[in-house]
Amino acid sequence: MGKIRIVETASYVPSKTVSNDELSHLMDTSDEWISARTGIKRRHISIGENTSDLCTKVAQRLLDQSGWSAESLDMIIVATMSPDSYTPSTAAIVQGNIAASKAFCFDISAACSGFVYGLDVAARFLAGKKAMRTMLIGGEVLSKVIDWQDRSTAVLFGDGAAGVLLENKQTAASEILASVLKTYGTQHDKLAAGKTMPLSEFPPKESTVLHPFEMDGQAVYKFATHAVPESINEACDQAEISVEDVDLFVLHQANARIVKAISKRMKQPQDKFPINIAEYGNTSAASEPLLLDELVKKEQLKRGQIVVLSGFGGGLTVGTQVIKF
Amino acid sequence: MGKIRIVETASYVPSKTVSNDELSHLMDTSDEWISARTGIKRRHISIGENTSDLCTKVAQRLLDQSGWSAESLDMIIVATMSPDSYTPSTAAIVQGNIAASKAFCFDISAACSGFVYGLDVAARFLAGKKAMRTMLIGGEVLSKVIDWQDRSTAVLFGDGAAGVLLENKQTAASEILASVLKTYGTQHDKLAAGKTMPLSEFPPKESTVLHPFEMDGQAVYKFATHAVPESINEACDQAEISVEDVDLFVLHQANARIVKAISKRMKQPQDKFPINIAEYGNTSAASEPLLLDELVKKEQLKRGQIVVLSGFGGGLTVGTQVIKF
Repeated sequence: MGKIRIVETASYVPSKTVSNDELSHLMDTSDEWISARTGIKRRHISIGENTSDLCTKVAQRLLDQSGWSAESLDMIIVATMSPDSYTPSTAAIVQGNIAASKAFCFDISAACSGFVYGLDVAARFLAGKKAMRTMLIGGEVLSKVIDWQDRSTAVLFGDGAAGVLLENKQTAASEILASVLKTYGTQHDKLAAGKTMPLSEFPPKESTVLHPFEMDGQAVYKFATHAVPESINEACDQAEISVEDVDLFVLHQANARIVKAISKRMKQPQDKFPINIAEYGNTSAASEPLLLDELVKKEQLKRGQIVVLSGFGGGLTVGTQVIKF
Repeated sequence: MGKIRIVETASYVPSKTVSNDELSHLMDTSDEWISARTGIKRRHISIGENTSDLCTKVAQRLLDQSGWSAESLDMIIVATMSPDSYTPSTAAIVQGNIAASKAFCFDISAACSGFVYGLDVAARFLAGKKAMRTMLIGGEVLSKVIDWQDRSTAVLFGDGAAGVLLENKQTAASEILASVLKTYGTQHDKLAAGKTMPLSEFPPKESTVLHPFEMDGQAVYKFATHAVPESINEACDQAEISVEDVDLFVLHQANARIVKAISKRMKQPQDKFPINIAEYGNTSAASEPLLLDELVKKEQLKRGQIVVLSGFGGGLTVGTQVIKF
């Protein structure tokens, strides 16, 4: 894919947290049940901030940290499954907010795989145009698409945003060594959110309803624990490395049990699979850059190390990048 | 951008049409008013078919016409601002429906510029991987996001889908000569649809509402009549051709007056700017491939001719490709 370098990482989560105990007052659930089955202790919930607001905070932090000017950005991609609106794209709102007037912008919808799909798309642009400065953000306000009475889905998700700056630096040691994207559309009904129905008559008698999350948890578990190792193995083959060469596996944080099952299935030590879901829940397209940023800030991920990003979720979709960080 | 060839075009619109006269029974408007200001006579409205259903029909027609097998597809992109759902992506549903198991899939959200943005993204992938077979569809069921009491927006939009098959054929005469994308995010509030608000308190008392179209028509008119000629001129410069060399300008069909104003502003004859909005209204991301397919089927656009695609709309966004067809 070329010498594409993650220049900077940043994240922003809303300040309000909701604990498992608080949820147990809203629905028939408990901290024990949620913790044991998912690894989640709390989640951040956005009050009054939309997806573009979280992403704008991330964008500003990325610019502050890097010293890049907003005007120097050539492209902004936001990966989200909970955009502010159908139009404008969340990326366009962010661009307006930070005054990145030169950047063209669009959103990518690939659910929890949105960040890795977005990284692949960004890399294609960067591969063709050396001097291109790119911002890629995964951001979600999933709380607005949750049925807060439904204990099977409401306990799982959280809000947040995180992102990266990318450039094509032929002189750098950093490199995207491989990228593999797959979609399993025959299983599209296993995980759905934000569904809207077409009119059943004209003129319509009722306004359009946005349907909350619906999920076949067992099917998604089975899918993830099979499709993700397969995707990682294929990406490592493409990168001509062994999974043993990978320093860290940054997996989409859907469920701690899924991450642990994948590490077992791949016969790789669990400490190569960092987990931060206790604090955030499943933040969909934001989850991998959130974890990536945490690892960079804690200096657990250093330049020169090999990191695997792997996302999976609605579609069903899966995607993996092998990165020399 | 390389020898990227539009192999095939196809379209599908729902059978039900709604005339201006019918709308005049629902709101204070008239056929004369709508026709004179927009060029629209009727629009197709989907009853019971969602965006993925329209796109699946287009996908099947593309495969039938080309003889390509579904399994030979490497990528499916759907450009839409009215997806079936936040997840799965509309592209993933289409992939499942046609059994294109090898193709990875995602949706692009760039509103009425979605098709030209999607074509640029697709071209980046194709540029890097010669043998890649790509399906790009623009599809919309805007009727579900319309306030059917609001005469300022309800009269403008329609439902439909259309798409193309793309390949990278170094031996072909066909070529994408140039592509220019721009976003004007400071004007993001001039055109909005499908907006959802974040929670204002937790737990929320009400479920999330999907807001219908809101538009500052004058601002969009002013934007389009300036930004589109600028974008076309820049793309022609990049392609090293003069606007006089262009055989056909396939512009997003937002409003016949906008298209005519652009042809005047560019001092190019109006018959180089085909208009089919009378039949369909503004179909957003579907509008350019719908018109493109019509021109191909009527043999008004022939191999070897120079066609300019230019889309504009929510974001605000604009995008232009110069194509040797």
